Amino acid sequence: MNLVPFVSVDAMMRLVHRIGIERVLVDLADAVAEDFRRWDQFDKTARLASHSGEGVIELMPTSDGSLYAFKYVNGHPGNGRHGRQTVAAFGMLADVRSGYPVLLSEMTILTALRTAATSAMAARHLAPAGARTMALIGNGAQAEFQALAFKAVLGVDRLRLYDVDPEATRKCARNLAGFGFAIAAAGSVAEAVEGAEIITTVTADKRNATVLGDNHVGAGVHINAVGGDCPGKTEIQADVLRRAEIFVEYAPQTRIEGEIQQLPADHPVRDLWRVVAGHEPGRRDARQITLFDSVGFAIEDFSALRYLRDRLAGTGLAQDLDLVADPDEPRDLFGMLLRAAPDAAVSSPS
Amino acid sequence: MNLVPFVSVDAMMRLVHRIGIERVLVDLADAVAEDFRRWDQFDKTARLASHSGEGVIELMPTSDGSLYAFKYVNGHPGNGRHGRQTVAAFGMLADVRSGYPVLLSEMTILTALRTAATSAMAARHLAPAGARTMALIGNGAQAEFQALAFKAVLGVDRLRLYDVDPEATRKCARNLAGFGFAIAAAGSVAEAVEGAEIITTVTADKRNATVLGDNHVGAGVHINAVGGDCPGKTEIQADVLRRAEIFVEYAPQTRIEGEIQQLPADHPVRDLWRVVAGHEPGRRDARQITLFDSVGFAIEDFSALRYLRDRLAGTGLAQDLDLVADPDEPRDLFGMLLRAAPDAAVSSPS
Repeated sequence: MNLVPFVSVDAMMRLVHRIGIERVLVDLADAVAEDFRRWDQFDKTARLASHSGEGVIELMPTSDGSLYAFKYVNGHPGNGRHGRQTVAAFGMLADVRSGYPVLLSEMTILTALRTAATSAMAARHLAPAGARTMALIGNGAQAEFQALAFKAVLGVDRLRLYDVDPEATRKCARNLAGFGFAIAAAGSVAEAVEGAEIITTVTADKRNATVLGDNHVGAGVHINAVGGDCPGKTEIQADVLRRAEIFVEYAPQTRIEGEIQQLPADHPVRDLWRVVAGHEPGRRDARQITLFDSVGFAIEDFSALRYLRDRLAGTGLAQDLDLVADPDEPRDLFGMLLRAAPDAAVSSPS
Repeated sequence: MNLVPFVSVDAMMRLVHRIGIERVLVDLADAVAEDFRRWDQFDKTARLASHSGEGVIELMPTSDGSLYAFKYVNGHPGNGRHGRQTVAAFGMLADVRSGYPVLLSEMTILTALRTAATSAMAARHLAPAGARTMALIGNGAQAEFQALAFKAVLGVDRLRLYDVDPEATRKCARNLAGFGFAIAAAGSVAEAVEGAEIITTVTADKRNATVLGDNHVGAGVHINAVGGDCPGKTEIQADVLRRAEIFVEYAPQTRIEGEIQQLPADHPVRDLWRVVAGHEPGRRDARQITLFDSVGFAIEDFSALRYLRDRLAGTGLAQDLDLVADPDEPRDLFGMLLRAAPDAAVSSPS
């Protein structure tokens, strides 16, 4: 048998706690940065999306020529009303030489971790020097991950929370209570952004909503725009985008899915990977408004799965799955099936 | 927890034997035909291929607006030399409304079954009436599945086997011994096709090889061309193609991957689904040469997974996988992670 290690949701949570949540976020930020620095080695394609009235189902593949990764992920803004996650995901790694899977994993939690780690990694290059205060607009499933990544990677330790639903803000503040933040709950977006050097928007269930307006954004701020991530779903007023220098993961995908879908197709944007690789500067001066138009890209999942695979070794947390048929003689797939018959003889023709 | 049923290789083989191999092939032919008849309801896209020096890894998604399916499949002609399958696969079904997976399954065996069932289903419309004799060129991992599907669906009970490796032919004949075929091993392609009304080519490890030449194909024959299925891999001499009426699954994909990659991009081909749906005739007369340029299409996998899901119910053969994180409160993904900490308190900041 050719068994494939599987990381369940439970196993993922155990692994994260063994390593430490903040350590995982720092490691993932480093893993993503490492892969961004070798951007040219990857096969890149906009994700393959299947849209329906309720949401979207996407496949996100990439390969560096040695490992192949893909993620299955949905985005269903109405899922929360039925007790389900807006975004759920799983993914796998395969060996390019054989095409055989080498790891299958839950990725709902891993995606939240890698998204936050990527945001924090981007902010390393884009946020004003010494930033310690972040407004967190949208306090749903991704919010705490974002907060913790900015703390672990950048040292952000003052949070200003806002959500249209105060219960979400209370949940977020409660979950973050043990991590050493000074937390303020704000009654409005305007109140939340007061004094914040970084503004993270991570809302769900919005259709071209304006979560962040032009009057909310002062000079020198870094905006981490995470929530807008599919056609017709944006969070930031177009005037803010026009004032900002915009950094993207993979422009052909971001033009369709990101905040910049509101702008003309030739509006200049900059590649984050070029900044990470040191080819171009990130933030240029203290008064500039920078904006990371995050939609999530397949290479980030590749980085996360690669990291997972490395850290999984020897933990005993993986479960072995009999996922790929592996007859003793490769050409004898049918013979393997015959020999599996209950009577150990051939199955009788029907 | 939101558990996803998983069908392992072992479970798939048990299920196939419970139902009966030939019954499964007939059922799958019907399931594929049923979905071909409602072709317009499906999202259709050429598969997303990642090519390397050793082979290809592909994702094949489709949806009928209610269910979404995708398959992961590789094609690595050199795998046999390392004791691995040329083609290995797994796939899943998801609910379009929620985006949540509802079934994960091995698909190495299921793909061999659905490919053979689709070939036989096509031959129902394209093979000469009353055909009982099939030449089977290429006696590797897919060969017996093809033979048995043509027997179960069409009543083909005389086989003429040929492979460049006589050991493959012996393996194939041995595996098919219990199924009521009259089997002849041929010493050449020319000998194998003598008297055959159907010619199936299903070879691997070929680069624009000419397995079937112009002199091998007489009037009235149906050719089931299965082996050529990626760019640069064909089996049939172009002259044969020019004499035949060619039927395809999904032309945009077949033009790249099928036998017709040897022909000009505007060479006329016909859609198999239109024939199956009754919009157009299949075979028109007894002297016509028909050719099904099979490359495999996502809707066939959809049909197979849908059938699997129906037949799996109540068997107890599925294994439950903890694949999708499902906190009690959807927005509280982070809280779920915190509560999974070994000390049942928050994980200490690192």
